[in-house]
Amino acid sequence: MGEVLTIENDATTLRVTQEGGVRRIAMARPPANALSLEFMGQLTKAFEEAAGDEGVRVVVLASDAKVFCAGHDLKEMQAARQEADQGRAFFEKTFLRCSDLMQTIVKLRVPVIAEVNGVATAAGCQLVASCDLAIASEEARFATPGVNIGLFCSTPMVALSRNVHRKHAMEMLLTGEMTEPTHAREIGLINRVVPKEYLGQVVQKYAETIASKSSFTLKLGKEAFYQQTEMPLSDAYDYAARVMVQNMMAKDSEEGIGAFVEKRTPQWKDE
Amino acid sequence: MGEVLTIENDATTLRVTQEGGVRRIAMARPPANALSLEFMGQLTKAFEEAAGDEGVRVVVLASDAKVFCAGHDLKEMQAARQEADQGRAFFEKTFLRCSDLMQTIVKLRVPVIAEVNGVATAAGCQLVASCDLAIASEEARFATPGVNIGLFCSTPMVALSRNVHRKHAMEMLLTGEMTEPTHAREIGLINRVVPKEYLGQVVQKYAETIASKSSFTLKLGKEAFYQQTEMPLSDAYDYAARVMVQNMMAKDSEEGIGAFVEKRTPQWKDE
Amino acid sequence: MGEVLTIENDATTLRVTQEGGVRRIAMARPPANALSLEFMGQLTKAFEEAAGDEGVRVVVLASDAKVFCAGHDLKEMQAARQEADQGRAFFEKTFLRCSDLMQTIVKLRVPVIAEVNGVATAAGCQLVASCDLAIASEEARFATPGVNIGLFCSTPMVALSRNVHRKHAMEMLLTGEMTEPTHAREIGLINRVVPKEYLGQVVQKYAETIASKSSFTLKLGKEAFYQQTEMPLSDAYDYAARVMVQNMMAKDSEEGIGAFVEKRTPQWKDE
Repeated sequence: MGEVLTIENDATTLRVTQEGGVRRIAMARPPANALSLEFMGQLTKAFEEAAGDEGVRVVVLASDAKVFCAGHDLKEMQAARQEADQGRAFFEKTFLRCSDLMQTIVKLRVPVIAEVNGVATAAGCQLVASCDLAIASEEARFATPGVNIGLFCSTPMVALSRNVHRKHAMEMLLTGEMTEPTHAREIGLINRVVPKEYLGQVVQKYAETIASKSSFTLKLGKEAFYQQTEMPLSDAYDYAARVMVQNMMAKDSEEGIGAFVEKRTPQWKDE
Repeated sequence: MGEVLTIENDATTLRVTQEGGVRRIAMARPPANALSLEFMGQLTKAFEEAAGDEGVRVVVLASDAKVFCAGHDLKEMQAARQEADQGRAFFEKTFLRCSDLMQTIVKLRVPVIAEVNGVATAAGCQLVASCDLAIASEEARFATPGVNIGLFCSTPMVALSRNVHRKHAMEMLLTGEMTEPTHAREIGLINRVVPKEYLGQVVQKYAETIASKSSFTLKLGKEAFYQQTEMPLSDAYDYAARVMVQNMMAKDSEEGIGAFVEKRTPQWKDE
Repeated sequence: MGEVLTIENDATTLRVTQEGGVRRIAMARPPANALSLEFMGQLTKAFEEAAGDEGVRVVVLASDAKVFCAGHDLKEMQAARQEADQGRAFFEKTFLRCSDLMQTIVKLRVPVIAEVNGVATAAGCQLVASCDLAIASEEARFATPGVNIGLFCSTPMVALSRNVHRKHAMEMLLTGEMTEPTHAREIGLINRVVPKEYLGQVVQKYAETIASKSSFTLKLGKEAFYQQTEMPLSDAYDYAARVMVQNMMAKDSEEGIGAFVEKRTPQWKDE
């Protein structure tokens, strides 16, 4: 695609780069990329900045640590119990911010690909489930182990249960045990498993493929996808048919269809 | 089952036949069975005629062309841009008719089996997803490639996302790439993959099996199936319990259970 | 875990035992564990008694017969047709009680594991689909064969269609044919298939794993799981975030996280 640019951001816990239209947000809060209140805010901001940059056509969420993400910062949460309200306000803030982060990914105007290099547990597994696509290395492991520490993975399961069948979700939630990447692929949590040394390459291939599409079309389609899943069939069709008309009236469908008919490469205007 | 009868219809683009209770609607608009506005109307009408014929117990949707169906007629759509409204009215009509066709299949009183002999893309893939069952040959391929031409497969995804998990749907929608039939089977888009030379035979076997059931029971059950999927669990049970009572009060359940208890073949009254 | 205790109950058709926190409800109404009106009432009561006993942390639903459960008692139902109302009142009572039984399992405060040793058909297959987890022996078979006797499996499909994809559910419902356990696992109806001689052992392992968790946490999480599946995404997150806060304010999360941080075994208070 071209040169890798470093994108400046306030957080020392994120390494953000860009190559062509591919924005890469690498979590860099070793050892576990624990989702402290502050770190979740930084991640949400990094996603929003990506969406705000017209040059960004796809986002990759990755990790610079050995694990992908092990979920919330338990020490920070346990410490909050010392407060006068026994932590209630802090917990409310934490889960609100966490839910904001996850829904920011779902609502982001560009597709988001999780590049899962290692362990993804609890809210870390939820990050994977919340991305549009997920590619994992053979070293990756998935779990919703909250039940082991008396804290059921109730917010992670919102994303998990919208990715996989109920019995599969329940097995992860009730046993808390680790899931191998091949099984995670079989049940629908991730799209693909690749040897560790090819992970970056395969994710890059997906990212470049998606980045070559019209940004306008991706935005329209991604938003419509999640909207229509929550509607009854006939409402979903009414809505999607309107989206199709809107898409047909836009420049990129005229250009795209024209290019297809004329057997040439389309030149997107992203509108 | 018996003799193959040709069923007359207005459309030269459909070859409609019947053998026993199996109505076969073969799309015959080569090379791609492109879903022009007119062709979609003819298809919808052929489904409605099948449902209106008491002798029809199951419908097979097939193709006489090399591909199954490649979706909308892009040349027709591109031409509509020349109109005063830049095609808006035509596009509205097109997607309305397309959604009608798909919902006609879902609501049809008899089960519909897709016999997928080749490429099924965009609205062609949506046809497969909209049928109750789908059997494909090893030559079949599936894609929602609208994103490649600037036109996200927003209506196809209504059906697709009700067949497969989100990450699988998103991979097809965002990359636009072809899916092999074995993968389509794994993710839930189709029921079975068979060698090309056995496709007709296997579909016929499914069709005969279903045609041997009570038409009344199939109608009641198919309708209830799609209705209850859109309800919360307790409403779904209230509704399905009422359907069961209605089914028990009908003649065919008395005959069917009687035949089962007496170890004989039931004689359906289809009521 | 310890000694196996026999739990007394009114029903001669149920063998209820307890070992540690694992309550085992074995259906013992040979040959088919047919779900007569009375037997469904006894089963529901056995589940409620389990939930009412504080010592119970997980329930296993098993069978002492060769089959797991073949569904409703057809002879009883056919006999009801002799009544003045042709059985309507009896059928209404039957399907109401059946739906109650299934929803009792879903709403039970403790997880329920189906131990499927043999054939599970119609409402028997629905029992499997209604449990949180299901482990089956290689001898198990699954079907919703009502269509063969003129009585579509409309209540079983409520549970089935919430476990597997639509085309898989439709294949079972429309053909009525038997599904092998490996296929049942692939489509999401069950979690695992094991050789017959290991079935009890594997189920016991799952049950002990789950019984070692905080009862309070399991209750909170199980309830939240099924609640949130019926909500739009943003409502689900609002709800689940509140559940997380409630879970953090409870004693077992403090103990569980503390034990995790201090690398010791947690001592649950189950509150």
